[in-house]
Amino acid sequence: MIRISRLPSKTNCVQEQDKNGMYEGWFAKPTHPNDASGPSGPYMREFLDEILPSKIGEHLRKFTRLPHLSGTEQNLKYAEQVRNEWREFGLDSVEMVPYDVLLSYPNVSRPNYIAIVDAQGREIFNTSLAEPTPEGYEDVPDIVPPYSAYSAKGQPQGDLVYVNYGRTEDFFQLERRMGINVTGKIVIVRYGKIFRGNKVKNAIRAGAKGLILFSDPADYCAEGVKPYPEGWNLPGGGAQRGNVMNLNGAGDSLTPGYPAKEYTYRSRPEDGVGLPSIPVHPIGYHDAFHFLKNMGGQIPPNNWKGALNVSYRIGPGFTDDFKNQFVRMNIHTNNQVTRIYNVIGRIRGALEPDRYVILGGHRDAWVFGGIDPMSGAALVHEIVRSAGRLLRKGWRPRRTIIFASWDAEEFGLLGSTEWAEDNAKVLQERAVAYINADSGIEGMYTLRVDCTPSLHTLVYDLTKQLASPEKEEEGLSLYESWHKRDNWTNDRDAPRIRKLGSGSDFEAYFVRLGIAAGRARYTKNWKTEGYSSYPVYHTVYETFEVVERFYDPSFARLRTVAQVRGGLVFLLADSQIIPLDANQYAIALDKYARSIAAMAQTHPQEMKTYEVSFDSMFSAVENFTVAAKEFHERLQAVNRADPIQVRAMNDQLMYLERAFIDPLGLPGRPFYRHVIFAPSSHNKYAGESFPGVYDALFDVEHSANQDKAWNEVKRQISIAAFTVHAAAATLAPPA
Amino acid sequence: MIRISRLPSKTNCVQEQDKNGMYEGWFAKPTHPNDASGPSGPYMREFLDEILPSKIGEHLRKFTRLPHLSGTEQNLKYAEQVRNEWREFGLDSVEMVPYDVLLSYPNVSRPNYIAIVDAQGREIFNTSLAEPTPEGYEDVPDIVPPYSAYSAKGQPQGDLVYVNYGRTEDFFQLERRMGINVTGKIVIVRYGKIFRGNKVKNAIRAGAKGLILFSDPADYCAEGVKPYPEGWNLPGGGAQRGNVMNLNGAGDSLTPGYPAKEYTYRSRPEDGVGLPSIPVHPIGYHDAFHFLKNMGGQIPPNNWKGALNVSYRIGPGFTDDFKNQFVRMNIHTNNQVTRIYNVIGRIRGALEPDRYVILGGHRDAWVFGGIDPMSGAALVHEIVRSAGRLLRKGWRPRRTIIFASWDAEEFGLLGSTEWAEDNAKVLQERAVAYINADSGIEGMYTLRVDCTPSLHTLVYDLTKQLASPEKEEEGLSLYESWHKRDNWTNDRDAPRIRKLGSGSDFEAYFVRLGIAAGRARYTKNWKTEGYSSYPVYHTVYETFEVVERFYDPSFARLRTVAQVRGGLVFLLADSQIIPLDANQYAIALDKYARSIAAMAQTHPQEMKTYEVSFDSMFSAVENFTVAAKEFHERLQAVNRADPIQVRAMNDQLMYLERAFIDPLGLPGRPFYRHVIFAPSSHNKYAGESFPGVYDALFDVEHSANQDKAWNEVKRQISIAAFTVHAAAATLAPPA
Repeated sequence: MIRISRLPSKTNCVQEQDKNGMYEGWFAKPTHPNDASGPSGPYMREFLDEILPSKIGEHLRKFTRLPHLSGTEQNLKYAEQVRNEWREFGLDSVEMVPYDVLLSYPNVSRPNYIAIVDAQGREIFNTSLAEPTPEGYEDVPDIVPPYSAYSAKGQPQGDLVYVNYGRTEDFFQLERRMGINVTGKIVIVRYGKIFRGNKVKNAIRAGAKGLILFSDPADYCAEGVKPYPEGWNLPGGGAQRGNVMNLNGAGDSLTPGYPAKEYTYRSRPEDGVGLPSIPVHPIGYHDAFHFLKNMGGQIPPNNWKGALNVSYRIGPGFTDDFKNQFVRMNIHTNNQVTRIYNVIGRIRGALEPDRYVILGGHRDAWVFGGIDPMSGAALVHEIVRSAGRLLRKGWRPRRTIIFASWDAEEFGLLGSTEWAEDNAKVLQERAVAYINADSGIEGMYTLRVDCTPSLHTLVYDLTKQLASPEKEEEGLSLYESWHKRDNWTNDRDAPRIRKLGSGSDFEAYFVRLGIAAGRARYTKNWKTEGYSSYPVYHTVYETFEVVERFYDPSFARLRTVAQVRGGLVFLLADSQIIPLDANQYAIALDKYARSIAAMAQTHPQEMKTYEVSFDSMFSAVENFTVAAKEFHERLQAVNRADPIQVRAMNDQLMYLERAFIDPLGLPGRPFYRHVIFAPSSHNKYAGESFPGVYDALFDVEHSANQDKAWNEVKRQISIAAFTVHAAAATLAPPA
Repeated sequence: MIRISRLPSKTNCVQEQDKNGMYEGWFAKPTHPNDASGPSGPYMREFLDEILPSKIGEHLRKFTRLPHLSGTEQNLKYAEQVRNEWREFGLDSVEMVPYDVLLSYPNVSRPNYIAIVDAQGREIFNTSLAEPTPEGYEDVPDIVPPYSAYSAKGQPQGDLVYVNYGRTEDFFQLERRMGINVTGKIVIVRYGKIFRGNKVKNAIRAGAKGLILFSDPADYCAEGVKPYPEGWNLPGGGAQRGNVMNLNGAGDSLTPGYPAKEYTYRSRPEDGVGLPSIPVHPIGYHDAFHFLKNMGGQIPPNNWKGALNVSYRIGPGFTDDFKNQFVRMNIHTNNQVTRIYNVIGRIRGALEPDRYVILGGHRDAWVFGGIDPMSGAALVHEIVRSAGRLLRKGWRPRRTIIFASWDAEEFGLLGSTEWAEDNAKVLQERAVAYINADSGIEGMYTLRVDCTPSLHTLVYDLTKQLASPEKEEEGLSLYESWHKRDNWTNDRDAPRIRKLGSGSDFEAYFVRLGIAAGRARYTKNWKTEGYSSYPVYHTVYETFEVVERFYDPSFARLRTVAQVRGGLVFLLADSQIIPLDANQYAIALDKYARSIAAMAQTHPQEMKTYEVSFDSMFSAVENFTVAAKEFHERLQAVNRADPIQVRAMNDQLMYLERAFIDPLGLPGRPFYRHVIFAPSSHNKYAGESFPGVYDALFDVEHSANQDKAWNEVKRQISIAAFTVHAAAATLAPPA
């Protein structure tokens, strides 16, 4: 078990009587198989206690006063401030690491907008050029208006077609059920459910010549909540910014696979990875109303209807009375190679300086970044401060800790991916784990953790030692609070932990390099709160105040999230045995194998015809399960006084995640290399298990060549089975 | 320095007075930067002394009595014998590891041959169906006739065109200078200069519908030497077998990237990697004479002329008198998935069982394999015997040693590549070095070593401690003998060491996985002996006798080669500090960078037009040079009593080669991933340095789109520079 003391709580945390009557060693039954983590006990407690809500508030306040879009002067200034303060906090080294990547900005002299044009060619309605500025920020310069970064330039005009969320299944329904072809049309879809880049890809594939993204109140307003600033709902004038690329993990579009340094060769812009070929633009629901209210064509199915007072007719084009009107997009956004800055800080490991635990999160924001990302970056800042204080007291972790303030996350995870590309070799050989630190809060209900299965046990162990931040839960551990609010399933009595998808900076570390990864934040109640993300996501209304007034007035929830993130980093860096649990990976693989086989079994006839079998996959999982069990038995028996024996077993733990990486990548996605977890081809935000098999099975539903499609399913099953076998072999005794 | 004793020689080796008057520590000035290798001294001497010429002869004799083509019963029997004897010798474990790969055999009921057909359709000349059997082997069954493995089936007929060696430059000259188009023709080329698979690729690209390969006496007979059995030259009835695929490192054609296990998905045969689309067949010079003697068309340039008494006219077709005659190929060779067997033996490392040093060589032979491969396999056998004897005396190496007897090398390095694919993860994490053990001898002159630069120092140190096997060189070290026969260059006063190319089993380990690799054998005098390979290469005349009568009657040369191979393995496995030298890599990179920049400078105008610069590459090499120097300074100072410090620096040494691997591979060759060394695209046998840049520069000479071609040069320079920078970073202090 992890030998740390229970925390005497300071704010919103109340001491609970230790059931064992002991201060060291909280659990009657240690749940973690890598027993006894070493001497970090008292330091761990001090480290966590030193993470202060008031300081988190201060950090959040100071880094959200001004807009700090990637590539701007202000974001460089914040980078310098982060660097300077991390140095003051006492890190061993802090450096700025620049890259020159393709960013995308609106043309300041030719604003983007969308118009309704009448038969005479007059623009009778234009969308707003900016969001209404929130109170207190009226004089702030450089607020970038809502736009779709990397949109193609152009002024396409034509009839509108409404395609719900723009998902693969929405276009499938539109084309095959409703018989509507969007070739040459402008498509309008609502935000939500999937990554916006996937909507763009689907629209392009369907033949659209332009795409309008809007935020529907059904997806961006919570029930009974007022729009900002009275509440935390999206106002009608707010619109969601965001990049619309399909990078599939490539990082900078012009330098896929390699860091975008000064000397690096850059593709010609037309050869850039993932750049959309059509204009795309986002609008709020006030503007969307004007387009939707006069739409003609079919009445949509109910699940295509949002919450605006319109019929959500599909088009193409407007109803009879407005038949002669059409829509024109005016998009002048420019792509340009721009310098970005990561800040990288280090605490040198005392015993194993060549083993790295990384805590990284982005700094760049669409505007102020009150939630995204500064509610996370403020936590990293506070974790660094607390760790620095410990360093001054003589503590030094066993392994090296790397802190990163990434740039250009909003433009496709660029800062984190370029640094991963730059340091790929060293990371592959030395990285123990990557903990992500994007937004710390997206709701007010409970903890949310997405992580690799081998971190499950550590997350549970740690959260049992932290207190719930909820006022009404005095005496409850974070684990208990979380558990009662979000139990996993009927099968598993534990708090739900989710798979990692993508959409934040862990991607290159986890999906490309195979470094064990996890993320934690505070979230909403997913059973009752049906809106997408959080309402003011990527709008100008993501201010310091939206956090301070609504999400976490005492900063207690953010403190808890900081303790989870920081605690994970501390234990990964300082435990003698790396606290990763291969048995949990075995359990997860078993579940995923059953689930993907069940998906295939919905085609029993084809399974027979094409002789598709999951036997090799199940047998590999069984093999892995035995190897994991035996590994942990040997680990229990390892002579902890023998540094080489300990290091060798730690190497096996460290490299377990790496074993799931296939250098050939997933089909057509060379930078998504994790055979067990990758973002879905149909929604980057969602992580699929056995993604190669999943995609192949998805394709059999839509492919004209069933023979080829089912052969690909078989090929993917074979690759998955082999990979799991190979991973099992890494856990076996080495000779 | 390497603390091993000087060897009291037993056969053909004479003791030389130790100039330092010491027995331990042979050199006045240690040349190796990784000083003090630990306690292996006396064991090393014993290990090398126990390698006995007589035993080598015995092993060679017993494994060359019968043909043992891959996939045959006899090759399985030899595998079982190897396994059993390795067990008896005392290895900790020995196992057979099967794979099911695509092999290729002649159709026993429809023999392959090529005919000259007259105007009436009569076959007036047919090539021989087999080589004349050598004396003593008359009753031996299952001698496979000469064939081109993986040839397409078919009976193409038409006019012949002679295209010299079938190199890219030969076809270029034929098409662009001589104006001859081979579309629809049958091409005849002589063996030699490049890998036969490249000749096939060139012929296919040029449009040929069949290809005849022949051995010209100019390329397969040494001056003043009689044909076998009176001498070691190729008889006129001998023909060179060999596979004609272009796998580019893929291993089994149907399972590229993954091990060919029972459950593995296999491509359809038409989708197999590297399979030629036209019939190909090899003939000897007696048969070739009949085709060449009546050829018509242009008289070739002098360097197209071989040593047969014919004009070597180019065609197309025969001269006037024979104008109506044409050629018909009759090829019925079958591809079939067949089980192969590697034998894998292990000595468990005492202190670091999770670090592997591999000695691997193939066992399968086209017929008897007197030279290829058994003159190498016999050495592995003897090395295992000697190591086993040491084990019984209580020795155990620091690291694990893995011995491999590969199958199906002749069919495209299949056994070794499948095992590398099967164990890729574990090897990537744990392999220190791979020493290859193909043919031990190809000439009677001196030592030949091809290896990665980081092994240079170890090779020199070791050979200084071994005696020359040459009778007339009593008292000379192997190093001295080698040095005086093959000095590197005017710039460098040391024996020449070559770059690794391909054509043997190290390929997957070195070029795909980035494991430090080397090979050693005895060779001819390259300055005076101009023939290709060795004359009886891949013929039935590769018998035990060709070695015992001509190449190495006392087995002293083979013993020396065994001591080099075994000594490398011993020192890599048993030295406390891994004896790899990053400084030598720096020297090599500098040389390669200058050389590739000079190649580009032959296009000064384009260099300007397209702004091509090698500055980034030179700056990366400089960076690497400093990093290597500083690394070895730190290594000198490392506290050898601190196991973690030692292990961490050893990890940096081990992973140095890995740092040159790009998971994206070279353009169009996903399994050639080494940015510094890969087989040439134009000749698999040759290793090019900076192969990506080299190929791009090669292409500018032939490309119609110069803009695109030079952009690719720039891209490749950028990748090379980045890779060298990244490798330098792996040598830096880890935190």
